[in-house]
Amino acid sequence: MPIYKAPIEDFQFLCHEIFDVTNSLSAVDDSIEISADLLDAILIECAKFSEEVLLPLNQTGDQLGCKFENGEVFTPPGFKEAYRKFSEGGWCGLSSQKEYGGQGLPEVIQYMTDEMISSANMSFGLYPGLTQGTILCISKHGSEKQKEIYLSNLISGKWQGTMCLTEAHAGSDLGLLRTQAFSNDDGTYSISGTKIFISAGEHDMVENIVHLVLARLPDAPKGTSGISMFIVPKFKIDKDGSLGDKNNVSVGSIEHKMGAKASSTCVMNFDNATGWLIGLENKGLSNMFTMMNKERLFVGTQGIAQAEVAYQNAKNYANERLQGRAPDGKKSPEKSADAIINHPDIKNKLLFSKSIIQASRALSIWTHLNVDIAKLDNNADNKILAEDIEGIMTPVIKASCTDFATEITNECLQIFGGHGYVSEWGMEQFVRDVRITQIYEGTNSIQALDLVKRKLKIHNGRLFNSLVNKIEGSLTEINQNKELEFLAEPFKKSFSRLIEVTNWMIKNENSSPQLLSTISNDYLKLFSLVCFAWMWLLIGEKCISSSNKENRFYKSKLKTANFFMYQVLPLSQYLEGKIKTNNMILENITIDDI
Amino acid sequence: MPIYKAPIEDFQFLCHEIFDVTNSLSAVDDSIEISADLLDAILIECAKFSEEVLLPLNQTGDQLGCKFENGEVFTPPGFKEAYRKFSEGGWCGLSSQKEYGGQGLPEVIQYMTDEMISSANMSFGLYPGLTQGTILCISKHGSEKQKEIYLSNLISGKWQGTMCLTEAHAGSDLGLLRTQAFSNDDGTYSISGTKIFISAGEHDMVENIVHLVLARLPDAPKGTSGISMFIVPKFKIDKDGSLGDKNNVSVGSIEHKMGAKASSTCVMNFDNATGWLIGLENKGLSNMFTMMNKERLFVGTQGIAQAEVAYQNAKNYANERLQGRAPDGKKSPEKSADAIINHPDIKNKLLFSKSIIQASRALSIWTHLNVDIAKLDNNADNKILAEDIEGIMTPVIKASCTDFATEITNECLQIFGGHGYVSEWGMEQFVRDVRITQIYEGTNSIQALDLVKRKLKIHNGRLFNSLVNKIEGSLTEINQNKELEFLAEPFKKSFSRLIEVTNWMIKNENSSPQLLSTISNDYLKLFSLVCFAWMWLLIGEKCISSSNKENRFYKSKLKTANFFMYQVLPLSQYLEGKIKTNNMILENITIDDI
Repeated sequence: MPIYKAPIEDFQFLCHEIFDVTNSLSAVDDSIEISADLLDAILIECAKFSEEVLLPLNQTGDQLGCKFENGEVFTPPGFKEAYRKFSEGGWCGLSSQKEYGGQGLPEVIQYMTDEMISSANMSFGLYPGLTQGTILCISKHGSEKQKEIYLSNLISGKWQGTMCLTEAHAGSDLGLLRTQAFSNDDGTYSISGTKIFISAGEHDMVENIVHLVLARLPDAPKGTSGISMFIVPKFKIDKDGSLGDKNNVSVGSIEHKMGAKASSTCVMNFDNATGWLIGLENKGLSNMFTMMNKERLFVGTQGIAQAEVAYQNAKNYANERLQGRAPDGKKSPEKSADAIINHPDIKNKLLFSKSIIQASRALSIWTHLNVDIAKLDNNADNKILAEDIEGIMTPVIKASCTDFATEITNECLQIFGGHGYVSEWGMEQFVRDVRITQIYEGTNSIQALDLVKRKLKIHNGRLFNSLVNKIEGSLTEINQNKELEFLAEPFKKSFSRLIEVTNWMIKNENSSPQLLSTISNDYLKLFSLVCFAWMWLLIGEKCISSSNKENRFYKSKLKTANFFMYQVLPLSQYLEGKIKTNNMILENITIDDI
Repeated sequence: MPIYKAPIEDFQFLCHEIFDVTNSLSAVDDSIEISADLLDAILIECAKFSEEVLLPLNQTGDQLGCKFENGEVFTPPGFKEAYRKFSEGGWCGLSSQKEYGGQGLPEVIQYMTDEMISSANMSFGLYPGLTQGTILCISKHGSEKQKEIYLSNLISGKWQGTMCLTEAHAGSDLGLLRTQAFSNDDGTYSISGTKIFISAGEHDMVENIVHLVLARLPDAPKGTSGISMFIVPKFKIDKDGSLGDKNNVSVGSIEHKMGAKASSTCVMNFDNATGWLIGLENKGLSNMFTMMNKERLFVGTQGIAQAEVAYQNAKNYANERLQGRAPDGKKSPEKSADAIINHPDIKNKLLFSKSIIQASRALSIWTHLNVDIAKLDNNADNKILAEDIEGIMTPVIKASCTDFATEITNECLQIFGGHGYVSEWGMEQFVRDVRITQIYEGTNSIQALDLVKRKLKIHNGRLFNSLVNKIEGSLTEINQNKELEFLAEPFKKSFSRLIEVTNWMIKNENSSPQLLSTISNDYLKLFSLVCFAWMWLLIGEKCISSSNKENRFYKSKLKTANFFMYQVLPLSQYLEGKIKTNNMILENITIDDI
């Protein structure tokens, strides 16, 4: 069975030494009651739950999958019970509002618990993970009454939530959606239509499921500006808050998928189902983005989580599997062969994985810290700056952490040779499970378009400038440290490259209507590499200037940083060349040439 | 259900226009009876069989898989019947010796039929594909009597063959294997041991299965030089050639795998099974390489095949799926959205796929043509030259075509968005099925080591020089064609880079015992990119100089070549940098740092 040990040491290093999370948060809001000790205690509790309760259900969940019988969906054995323990432990409401029963803890802690849960059992984590978005969406856009009815039950974990966007003919292009909503006399709406790919659309874990459904009112404008959002619960709620009649919501079928098999993916039929408008009419799509953006960061977390667990297993196997001899001399002459971790090829694969995983974890923690600051800081400038970081980093983290996760889980599978292909060892499940993260909550190409066509442009490019200022600010100290030049020099080269390419894009975008779309994926990748490099630089600085720098942990961080800068980051040069020629090549190509 | 149309036009273009296959072969051996018309007819027949018989079994084969019941293995419904038709059609013996009932056709034709079969149904193709290796091995190393007993039954398809190498603790490192062989009084041997990952080890398609088993004789030297090969048939053969008693060979279990589920992967127990020595004692491993090398090229073919079918489906879907509007203006204003093939991101993904698939197909056809020449040509110099090409290209094709195939099938899945993740559409099966090709018949890292540590070194580097001479020879004409400079210039730059990096490696290899192992994977990738670029240059030359150059097929080839040269090939620069710094970075890293 696959192993998993939560990377507590790395979490603590990043929170306490790199980003000084608890002090940074206390500084912006002194009502935050989070000490370093409390943070550590939460991490250890969640690690225990993930390792002991969730991990053992991961392989059986994949093998047995969800079952659809007589219109009902059953999660795999053990999931319901694990979820009961999970909600009793208060994990559902970790970062939710205290007034509705949540613990009010920062998002940065939520990130780390999400990572652990998603490493141990990605399918399980998706159920409460999605509900986080529902909670946020109702908190932001719901009426007081709606908050009262739904929030405490969602936060306690008694109910769960979904987002119902996709229709068979409307996926990336939600403007095409057709589900209809008609106003009833009593202030409710009748919702009719079919939604597909609805994660956690129906299952047996909770007594009620709260669907947030996008639909069109009669005479609504065409396209994306004619979409409204409705709350459509599986069971209607009576006046006293108790569960009422079953709503006209049913499951058509569940999907048979490549992976994430313990997560139920449903076709949901709304047949004159009763719904309640949430937020303003025709503002449904932009309101849904409250939920969507949160989920996009969460999907990035799933990517990091699966890459981490795959890496841990591959490293473990590479230390135990004996095959061949190290090219630089026998390592275990008393044995018939050396552990394969001594083979340079295996080292390269593991270091590649580690250098991406740890940088993306750092970047995610920093981004979630900014999500907290954006929420808590009363200083308007700081708030805007933090919102800018959250805004620009969301597509980057969602896409790059999941793209790299597919690459890493595949590389880690490869370390197992034939055993990687066999289900028993669990590696192929990681590859299959993580593959959905590149797709859902907006495919990674949609993320790339969000970055270049929206995030780089809004507020006259302020978001990008905010990031550039943050990075430049951090360089002042670093520039004085000669010992750090081996990391600073390649980083600065790549940072200049990112700025130069960004300016080139802005300058040239009017030369061709398709320029930005054409290069968006490569630009996002370049962007993420530079951000990862920045993280390694910050980490490197801390490790070099620490009084404890001979410590194994610091030394190996520095070596991993070095590996990243000289083996991975140089991809940015290739990407620059590719970006600058791509449109010229593509303009000449018709669809018949493809 | 997924579609597949055999790429007959591309096969014909490569055979007739680029490599002039039939005339080249007739020139080396005038007994070869293969006209262009016959070649075309075979392609069309095999296309029909693949599209009509094998393709419809591919998804059900995946869903139902092989079953293991009471010690027997059953292939999925329809497989046995399809195999009967396949062998009746003479496909099993297409390239086998006429004297044993084969058709004696060239390997280059076998390549194309293998590609079609493996596109339509990779799992099915593996059964007869492996038997090809058994036939070759017995032909080369078997006694006259062994040939007489086995070859005609294997060639007719009445029996099948396997290769039994791997043991639980001995995969990449076969020197560790422990299966034992004891000599009996009657000239037979008793074989005992357990082999794992045996493809087609047991199943219901044929009446007998001929295992080629590696085992150790008592007092054999340790390691790889103490391994002998034995023929161990499932049913022993009576003196009159009829089937005799069941041998002591049994199936322990079948593996549950990520994909290739219709191919039975068995744990095989040999319990004092009767075997016959084939070839000399202790020469088993090098003799097995006769089979292995053939299978390595075959695995490369599987990679190309799966990439092709994934690309075809993605292109088809991209032409039909309507989402969003093309950035350069509406393409179908009468519809609610444009086909997604109009989005530059989709174009990039499809062109990337096409540019690799078509180049690797060209490279494989050229390599297989060299396999034929090596077999047929009586001129010793030509024979050696062709053997050199076969030898150096085998690891390159096996590893790079399968590595790229995983990348391409994943990119093509992505084009389907959520539908790609759902089993119904078949895309996720391609990703799962093709994943094994990076692993079996020697992992791709083993291929890379074979390239840098063996193929570049034997005969004082003659193999590489043979390739360089071939390429340089082809440049003479090309250099005079100014119209071709847009392809020739980037190619020549990358070709010089490959030579320069190769020389750098040779010069520096003694500086560090692990240098070659460290950089082997990147070197192989660089090597393959340059070979692909060369193929595009040869194709480009033909298209530009054709009297028919306004033809859609030629024009789109030229555009694809252009895409490859400026969007894919520049990776070689990154790889050069990575290769030259990798060892310096890695030398500094201990296994505790990983």
